[in-house]
Parts: sequence; C-alpha cells; structure tokens
Amino acid sequence: MTGPQNIYDDPEFFAGYARLRATATGLNEALEQPALRSLLPEDLHGLRVLDLGCGFGDFAREARRRGAREVVGVDVSARMLERAAALTPDSAIRYVRTSIEALDGADGPFDLAVSSLALHYVEDYRGTAARIAGLLAPGGLFAFSVEHPLCTALARQRWVRDAEGRALYWPVDGYRDEGPRSTRWFVDGVIKYHRTIETYVNGLLDAGLALRRLLEPEPADGEAARVVPEVELHRRRPPFLLLAARKPD
Amino acid sequence: MTGPQNIYDDPEFFAGYARLRATATGLNEALEQPALRSLLPEDLHGLRVLDLGCGFGDFAREARRRGAREVVGVDVSARMLERAAALTPDSAIRYVRTSIEALDGADGPFDLAVSSLALHYVEDYRGTAARIAGLLAPGGLFAFSVEHPLCTALARQRWVRDAEGRALYWPVDGYRDEGPRSTRWFVDGVIKYHRTIETYVNGLLDAGLALRRLLEPEPADGEAARVVPEVELHRRRPPFLLLAARKPD
Repeated sequence: MTGPQNIYDDPEFFAGYARLRATATGLNEALEQPALRSLLPEDLHGLRVLDLGCGFGDFAREARRRGAREVVGVDVSARMLERAAALTPDSAIRYVRTSIEALDGADGPFDLAVSSLALHYVEDYRGTAARIAGLLAPGGLFAFSVEHPLCTALARQRWVRDAEGRALYWPVDGYRDEGPRSTRWFVDGVIKYHRTIETYVNGLLDAGLALRRLLEPEPADGEAARVVPEVELHRRRPPFLLLAARKPD
Repeated sequence: MTGPQNIYDDPEFFAGYARLRATATGLNEALEQPALRSLLPEDLHGLRVLDLGCGFGDFAREARRRGAREVVGVDVSARMLERAAALTPDSAIRYVRTSIEALDGADGPFDLAVSSLALHYVEDYRGTAARIAGLLAPGGLFAFSVEHPLCTALARQRWVRDAEGRALYWPVDGYRDEGPRSTRWFVDGVIKYHRTIETYVNGLLDAGLALRRLLEPEPADGEAARVVPEVELHRRRPPFLLLAARKPD
C-alpha cells in the first residue's frame, strides 16, 4: 500500500474533471445521482450527515438545503476542498481533508453516510466499511455508488465493436481477481480497485449492517437519452452499482 | 405465461441429465454444491426442510442424514420424482409434484428452504420469493443458487475465443433486459429466465427477508481443477450466484 491515491490534485486531471462537472451533462447527473438520491431518506431534517469523497461539496450543500443539521464532507484533495469551501458560506458544513480509508477528524455518530463514485478508489473496502459502520448512529444509513464490478473487471472498460464501430458486447475477464486496475481518465494511471459484488455486499453485512437495497440502474428515456452519448449502451450492461445498508437500532 | 417449464420430462433431456448426474464430476459438484452447503446451518437437527427443485432427492436424503426432522422435496418432473422415490426409503421425506411457482401441497412452516440451480427456470421470481418467505418459520433461512446473471444475460453462454481457440473474454449484453433466454442443454429450447442481481437481491428484501450472504464462488485448486474441463475459465467470470436470507424472528 502506497497511501491513498490523490489523483484529483493532479493539475491536468483536475482541469478535465472541473470541466466535466461544470457542464453537468454526464451519466452521473442523468443516472447515478438520481439513483443515489432514491436510496436516501425523504426527510433529512435534523440529521448529521457524512459525505465521503465530497468533491466540490454539492451534496453537502444540498443536504443542508434539505434540512440536515450538520454535514461533514471529507476528501483527500486539497484543490477540491478549496473550491468546496469557496462555494459554501455555511458554518454547519465542515470540510475535512483526509482519505476515506483514514477518516481522520470525521467524528461520529452520523445518521447518514453517503459516498458517490469514490469507494472504487479505496484499496481497503472491508476496513472502510467497518469504520463507516462504527461512525453511524443506531438506525443510521450508509448509501453509496461505485462503478459496477462488471465494468471494472477489465481495465480497458470499452465495448467490443465490429468493423463499422457497432458495439457487439461488453467484455468481462478477471472478475474474481480483485485489486488495482490502471485506467485512463483525463490522465493515464488512474487506479481503480476492482471488487466483486460478493465483496461489496458481504463487506457491509460483516460490518454489522443490514442491507436495504441493491441497485443496478439503467438510464430511462428522456433526459439521459438527450445528453449522454450512446446512452442505450448503458442499458446493455449496468454502469453503476449502488448499495444502501442500515445499522440496527 | 404458458405454465411452468418441465424440460426434465423430455426423454432426451432426461437421459442426458441422468448421465451427467451419475458421473457427478461437473462444476455443480465441485463448486456450486459446496458453496450452497456453506450457507446452511451446521446443525439440521429437528428442522423442517423444503427443497425446491429436488430432482433425485439427493439433498433431501442428505438433510435427513444430517438430522432434519422432515423434508419436503418439490419438483415439476414426474420422472425425477419417480427416481427420487425409488431411492428414498424414508417416511420423513415427502415428494410433491408441483412447480416452484405454485408450491401446491408444500405446507409450511419450514425452518430451511433450499434451492439448487432451479430458480433461473422460474418466470415469476418475485412472487416465488414472497411465497417462500411466507412458508418460512420465524428465523427460518432461505438459501439458493442460480446461474450467475453475468452468464445468463446472453443466451449463447459461450466465451469469445481467438482463432486458436483461446478464451479472450466473456461477452455480456442485454443485462437489463430481464426475461426468457432459449438455450441448448442436451436439447434445444431450454428456457432460462435472465434476471439482474438487483432483482435477485431486492426480491428477497421485498419479501421481508434479511440478507445474510451473497456468494460468487470460484473454483479452488485441487478437486475442481482435476475434474472440470477448463476450470480456470470459471475464475475469470463467476458461473454461479448464491444468496441466503433469513426471516426475522
């Protein structure tokens, strides 16, 4: 283990990522974010919320607008947190620079822990799940999204296409071979950790949480179809896996 | 819906299947059966057990040897149950000819419901899961195996190979398109129902059960490697999905 990856502080990566988020027309906005919202309580009034991999603090501010009493956003990237702080004139939101593995300074208990597309960057998922469970109040909920294991199994993450460029099928290999995959996302060498669905689910159960929901959402007609190129491909294999689990009362 | 499939009473299919089971050197024996056993209670003493898709009654007899008080085995195939009855001189085992969808004559409550590689032949999984949950005693366990959704998404169920016959990758397509897949297994036109992992898991949760375990087992070195051709391929994508869920006390 070489310490948590902090690709978001790479200037080239950060520039590309900031552009992507500024346009807000990607698959995350059209599919992953609505699916993650569907796992959260309707009413956040009075809740203490932890956002793991909070980025620019979008969800932290949303949670406050929806009534959360206090939000702690953690992220390993100084650049992300700088921008988050500049966007957040709210003393009930606190940003903490720490890795999701360490969670230094994120003092529980929390009623809700949320993580959007961050845990596939974490090497020690089982340990992290256990630590998060430890930070939850009784009855507290942990909901997160990751890239679907079917997509992260092969580092290439591309459809097999015919000579005319038509997508033939999604290739899977090395599914049980859990560990790092080096991919290109704005820059080369972005490390994602592939894990089986078995590990994602049983890691929650072994942390003493009760599974509430497993989602493999597909884009609906409408908005997603307008903004996401080749959106129909995401109906042919699931891009995201989402899980929600509750700490017993 | 044209009624439950009963391919096992097709003479050609039955002959092929009986040969396969008689040799007992397939992937089921090496991988699926041990994984399913790992989900069951150590001690079956005094339990009432339901076996869904009991076939020749192998598990029914094993459950009795392990102390089960009573076993009800259900299967849609008259031929299978005829052979099961001939192999079972035990009045505490009762075989009932009914489909897993209907479960006519399988009177609960049961402490344990088990199903090995049968539920992917069932069209109405959610209704079936709810009915099984209804037959469980408080604290009762439901454990089952199915072909992995990654394998049933495409009806072809074959590796993509290069010109030398080397397996390149497992092709996935139509993952979210739940429904029948017509495949060849001894005979043409065997219908399996593809479902997402989301449906398999949430169907249990919606039936009021608490998930205990999700397994995507891979063959270990040793026995499996000796008896299963190209066993290493089953480490590259999971052949089986297993779930265990408990009815609250």
